[in-house]
Amino acid sequence: MLALYFDRELTLQELPLPQIGPAEALVRVQLAGICGTDLEILKGYHRFTGILGHEFVGVVEGPDKSPWLGRRVVGEITIACGACPRCQQGLRKHCQDRRVLGLLDRPGVFAQYVVLPEVNLHAVPEGLPEPTAVFTEPLAAALSVFEALPPKVSDPFLVIGDGNLGLLISWVLALRGAMVHLAGHHPEHLHLARPYGVHTFLASDLPPGDYALIVEASGAPGGLDLALKRIRAGGTIILKSTYAGYYPLDSALLVVPEVHLVGSRCGPFPAALRLLQQGWVDPRPLISRTFHLSQGLAAMTYARQSGVLKVLLDCR
Amino acid sequence: MLALYFDRELTLQELPLPQIGPAEALVRVQLAGICGTDLEILKGYHRFTGILGHEFVGVVEGPDKSPWLGRRVVGEITIACGACPRCQQGLRKHCQDRRVLGLLDRPGVFAQYVVLPEVNLHAVPEGLPEPTAVFTEPLAAALSVFEALPPKVSDPFLVIGDGNLGLLISWVLALRGAMVHLAGHHPEHLHLARPYGVHTFLASDLPPGDYALIVEASGAPGGLDLALKRIRAGGTIILKSTYAGYYPLDSALLVVPEVHLVGSRCGPFPAALRLLQQGWVDPRPLISRTFHLSQGLAAMTYARQSGVLKVLLDCR
Repeated sequence: MLALYFDRELTLQELPLPQIGPAEALVRVQLAGICGTDLEILKGYHRFTGILGHEFVGVVEGPDKSPWLGRRVVGEITIACGACPRCQQGLRKHCQDRRVLGLLDRPGVFAQYVVLPEVNLHAVPEGLPEPTAVFTEPLAAALSVFEALPPKVSDPFLVIGDGNLGLLISWVLALRGAMVHLAGHHPEHLHLARPYGVHTFLASDLPPGDYALIVEASGAPGGLDLALKRIRAGGTIILKSTYAGYYPLDSALLVVPEVHLVGSRCGPFPAALRLLQQGWVDPRPLISRTFHLSQGLAAMTYARQSGVLKVLLDCR
Repeated sequence: MLALYFDRELTLQELPLPQIGPAEALVRVQLAGICGTDLEILKGYHRFTGILGHEFVGVVEGPDKSPWLGRRVVGEITIACGACPRCQQGLRKHCQDRRVLGLLDRPGVFAQYVVLPEVNLHAVPEGLPEPTAVFTEPLAAALSVFEALPPKVSDPFLVIGDGNLGLLISWVLALRGAMVHLAGHHPEHLHLARPYGVHTFLASDLPPGDYALIVEASGAPGGLDLALKRIRAGGTIILKSTYAGYYPLDSALLVVPEVHLVGSRCGPFPAALRLLQQGWVDPRPLISRTFHLSQGLAAMTYARQSGVLKVLLDCR
């Protein structure tokens, strides 16, 4: 099968079909999405070697006896051991021996086929188009901000970053009725948040004042700089950005004003699928361009450009 | 002016126009909504005497110098003193010397005019029809469940009660992506939650199993009975129902399974207005019937019947 393989450099390769383990399913990938994290891996983040990619929608083609056979699916990206203390506590996403699709010790989805544990699969509701369903994973990641949100917190909330994740987060916070400010660098991206009632600002033009809640989803160190400048004493910064390299944190900026800095990662697939199915979130305006998998190298180069939002790979 | 006045019995009266105090506005009421709490007052709840009603939309007609003059408004129902320790801490809704529109020491809105502090007013966005805007107060009350929601809590959530408030709560929880179960007694009410993706059940047919989060909004003691039967150990029951009389609580049902029972009252008007303006919540299917204020006694009798949802009073 065709696959985008990274081993210090990215190449398009013809690889054997992956082996199906016990309680696993073979999924023929239909569409895959390129995430900012994939681009960070090219810069050395996670020191990953293998097939890239973790956002996908596909159809189960094996094994023959699978109850999932023939079904359209999306899949959670963490492969948990099920046996370690954290798994036993129900914290599978924090499994001590985890593998992560296209990110950590597990081949990803920028390929014609991928193998995933059945427990990771979620059926895609009938009628939900693939270019919508492929956003389930990033939308779930956006929804995970609710798990980090203090129950009583006054808005406006500030979301930093007008990439895919920042936009999705601004939308789901707006769906909760919150007043949301979104700061970014691309007027044409900020524009996509306005139908959701989000107030948008170029980061350089953000009005004065502090925020009780800031979500940092810019994917770059400058986002956390801005968050630390604008957070209210006692406020919460939810950190979604991951990138290669280190952030030089001045701990006094957290300690003195008693700021909560809360990391947030993967989120609930069922909730994401419900929002997509209801049409309350329509991610399709985020699609900048779709390339065929065979043009995967060009797609990655395209996705790296400033001002590009979601780039999809058609793997059929 | 015409008004619905309660003093052990309900009468329609011709009363003088209310006096406008400092920093207050005179509002000509357009539409008012009858709430379950109004019906409980007729049974003795709150021992209130005066003009009933707290859900409204209207137009500011005085004083002449008011910056609100001519604007369409909705209004928060708690009139805070601004001086007590709780007000000083920003907890105006818990003011120790509060008055509450049509509920506690303050004339309500089932009248042609009402006086409210300007600080209580919220402008109704242009284009939002009055029969939608009049739901701002109950929708805000529904949204207050978010303030009581633990950040990490697994769904499905159970909402008990298929009256106006139970339906609104099921809708706003669905808008957050949650899987929501709604239990009630009226198939024709439950039906109104399905467009939001809510799973509905007659209370007698609720599937087995417990819930980590239950919102009790039935307005009747039986709702809390059901909640206490179905709450998971360590779970949270958010209590929205208020009614005349006492609930005979067996404290062991809270203590042994370490259940959190959290009261929840008024909520954020700006968030409610945003959801109405975006059209994400359309409360108009909840309107059972609209009466003119002059038919207010008949309206209250009608509203008391089983199976009736929102009854509006046209006060123009």
